[in-house]
Amino acid sequence: MTTPAPKNSTTQTIARLRDILGDRLSTAEAVRQQHGKDQTWNPGAPPDAVAFVQTTKEVQQIVSICADHSVPVIPYGTGTSLEGHFSAPYGGISIDLNGLNHILEVNSEDLDCRVEAGVTRKALNAHLRDQGLFFPIDPGADASLGGMTATRASGTNAVRYGTMKDNVLGVTAVMANGEVIRTGTRARKSSAGYDLTRLMVGSEGTLGVITEVALKLYGIPESIRAGVCTFPSVEACCKTTMQTIQLGIPIARIELVDVEHIKAFNSHSKLSLVEAPTLFLEFHGTEAGTREQTEMFAAIAEEHGGSNFSWASKEEDRTKLWQARHDAFWATKNLMPGKEPIVTDLCVPISRLAECVEESRKDLEASNIYAPMVGHVGDGNFHTIMFFDPADELEVKRVKAAYGRMIERALAMGGTCTGEHGVGSGKRAYLPREHGPALAYMQAVKRAFDPLNIMNPGKNVAI
Amino acid sequence: MTTPAPKNSTTQTIARLRDILGDRLSTAEAVRQQHGKDQTWNPGAPPDAVAFVQTTKEVQQIVSICADHSVPVIPYGTGTSLEGHFSAPYGGISIDLNGLNHILEVNSEDLDCRVEAGVTRKALNAHLRDQGLFFPIDPGADASLGGMTATRASGTNAVRYGTMKDNVLGVTAVMANGEVIRTGTRARKSSAGYDLTRLMVGSEGTLGVITEVALKLYGIPESIRAGVCTFPSVEACCKTTMQTIQLGIPIARIELVDVEHIKAFNSHSKLSLVEAPTLFLEFHGTEAGTREQTEMFAAIAEEHGGSNFSWASKEEDRTKLWQARHDAFWATKNLMPGKEPIVTDLCVPISRLAECVEESRKDLEASNIYAPMVGHVGDGNFHTIMFFDPADELEVKRVKAAYGRMIERALAMGGTCTGEHGVGSGKRAYLPREHGPALAYMQAVKRAFDPLNIMNPGKNVAI
Repeated sequence: MTTPAPKNSTTQTIARLRDILGDRLSTAEAVRQQHGKDQTWNPGAPPDAVAFVQTTKEVQQIVSICADHSVPVIPYGTGTSLEGHFSAPYGGISIDLNGLNHILEVNSEDLDCRVEAGVTRKALNAHLRDQGLFFPIDPGADASLGGMTATRASGTNAVRYGTMKDNVLGVTAVMANGEVIRTGTRARKSSAGYDLTRLMVGSEGTLGVITEVALKLYGIPESIRAGVCTFPSVEACCKTTMQTIQLGIPIARIELVDVEHIKAFNSHSKLSLVEAPTLFLEFHGTEAGTREQTEMFAAIAEEHGGSNFSWASKEEDRTKLWQARHDAFWATKNLMPGKEPIVTDLCVPISRLAECVEESRKDLEASNIYAPMVGHVGDGNFHTIMFFDPADELEVKRVKAAYGRMIERALAMGGTCTGEHGVGSGKRAYLPREHGPALAYMQAVKRAFDPLNIMNPGKNVAI
Repeated sequence: MTTPAPKNSTTQTIARLRDILGDRLSTAEAVRQQHGKDQTWNPGAPPDAVAFVQTTKEVQQIVSICADHSVPVIPYGTGTSLEGHFSAPYGGISIDLNGLNHILEVNSEDLDCRVEAGVTRKALNAHLRDQGLFFPIDPGADASLGGMTATRASGTNAVRYGTMKDNVLGVTAVMANGEVIRTGTRARKSSAGYDLTRLMVGSEGTLGVITEVALKLYGIPESIRAGVCTFPSVEACCKTTMQTIQLGIPIARIELVDVEHIKAFNSHSKLSLVEAPTLFLEFHGTEAGTREQTEMFAAIAEEHGGSNFSWASKEEDRTKLWQARHDAFWATKNLMPGKEPIVTDLCVPISRLAECVEESRKDLEASNIYAPMVGHVGDGNFHTIMFFDPADELEVKRVKAAYGRMIERALAMGGTCTGEHGVGSGKRAYLPREHGPALAYMQAVKRAFDPLNIMNPGKNVAI
């Protein structure tokens, strides 16, 4: 357990940082509050100061000074994560990495690039478009690539392109003693030593501050076909998905949207979608390839009662569709003013998906909880956004109990408590159940890399 | 640096192990020698005893006893690795895992399975065939899946299906204190905690003994088209490969074989291949898909002077072709009786592949070294097998110097000293150059997990 740094060391730290950063160090109340609380139910805690950095060198200086005084360091990207990752329960310095916003190199021949941690996924894709390349990982928000690496993010394309773990070739990171390391090489594979890259991916700032990321890129497919297809039930959506994956159709995206979300999309994004359980789909390939995939999918969907197929081949229509999907969180949040959301992030083996979704739905209905559902169902991953009134103690209790049951259900099916959102402070309680004795080895890595426990303390595998 | 365990602790360890294993513990000279030396130039060292285990429980008992006496533990699979991974320079107990040969579960709906560490890749594929499934990773030898996990192996299919790092969903491992951990879940993705699975993949027995592995599986493609195509030069092969990858053709295998190897194949495998630089190819997909891929590839190949296309769609012909490719090491070794091989395993960004291969070839010619070349060129990975007479001091010196220059060349191009063979004892010297300050963090993990330094000491990141 970390104890807060003594007040005088924090004061000294801030004074030393101000010498380096000047105006780019802020202790303003509003800035601290904004850097300490996410959009969910997770309790926030403001840092003592926020450092707006511009170089890896500055991050190195800050971490070294913080290490001198045993003051916590909390990395901050776009602030869009959902598990209290960037709150500062023990105080300390929030390092705002948005100033690290340079695309350092794009190697189109090798389909890779190197970017600073603050570059967002949309900024990277805007930069790549003219070269016919793209980076596929797309959490709902326009998150920073450093933050996506730190939380092992994924999104709607993971079923085909994998998650950040599959697409980060290496990182530059400032470690707890201020040392800078660079992991990975530009080769596509290596057996040289331990896989530090994948140890840093998903470490949520608890092992080091990621300042640069090397990423795999992909050629924009010759043909992209996107569309929607409605079904008589959520279960029919899940079964269609299962069969599509099992048949090896190389689908790029297959997303479940339930009726509640469709209603929210129609309202928030000015769409006119049929109000029924829906799969949002996308196929990537050659012209002939996407046509073939579409036909194979349609045959499966029809068996499960799929109808109202609607295909969008124009980029504009596709963009509108996927933007609506990405806005799911905000679309529903706007419908529920004054309510707090908890977002679940269960991921189970695909053979258990329909069962897990159905049991969860019944449980939520029986508990009288309004909880729209969306899912990256091709990965066996789905989210429910449970809304509650924080002032209503009984409702809070009911929601928390349902949340716990949902996680327990996923774990019992061989799944995980978090498919892509990460642990942060919000899911720490579930790690012992998920990992058993393996958790102690994660904690041993943490202690070995960060003996003072200053790197984002209280998050992820923290003891 | 590890010092050998005192003689009396080894004697006590062996006595205690004999109580548990009886005849399944061997101290016979021939058995010890066979378990301490691989097929390459790496110096061997026999263990003090070999334990033929049958269960994870037995591995746990052995490691606990070895920990009591600070006696080294060296895991042994099929003995086919190439970097001195299983030699016992500090003595100790070799754990032969071939008795752990059960396929524990196959979940065809989820495209995954769980096997004991001693199951070989061919045994698994024979078991899966009737269910229309396969496991793609294929190092040349019929290696054990535990060994392949421990060395982060890949092979000819990696360009499409990735390496062991991409296909291991989790492991069961006995750690240095005898504790058993299980990493990963059956979900396809997770952000719950540090990625222990990928830390164990490639750890070469230095962090724990892997006793079970959960693996991704794939449906056998509807259509498989394999073939060969000859080129005027190795460079033309590399350039064709580069363009194929850059265009995003989802090729399953693309392998370079140079003239020397073609000659060896014709002799060893009774083939009648045209004696020219050759690409061995395979396309996976639907009927229409593989036809389209083949046509796209052929157009690229023709631009680079490709000719003598020959396609094999029958499984029998394909098997013969790929078996010849997998026998490359033995085919050439048999041509060079009395000579020792050193196998290089360079991997570079694909844009540098042609240059790296050409410079290496010129260097080897100038050094008068007979060194046939094969390559998983779709990954930017190629092997030269350099033969030398161990009694000829000048030749040994010349070969060692060329070997060092080749690694230095790959590193200077942003590559790695080993794409897939691992570090073992043979490549330790090159890790500081490849990883810089990051190496110390790998070593910190080693110390945290194995404070007594009994897990395969002297290998991989060992200090």
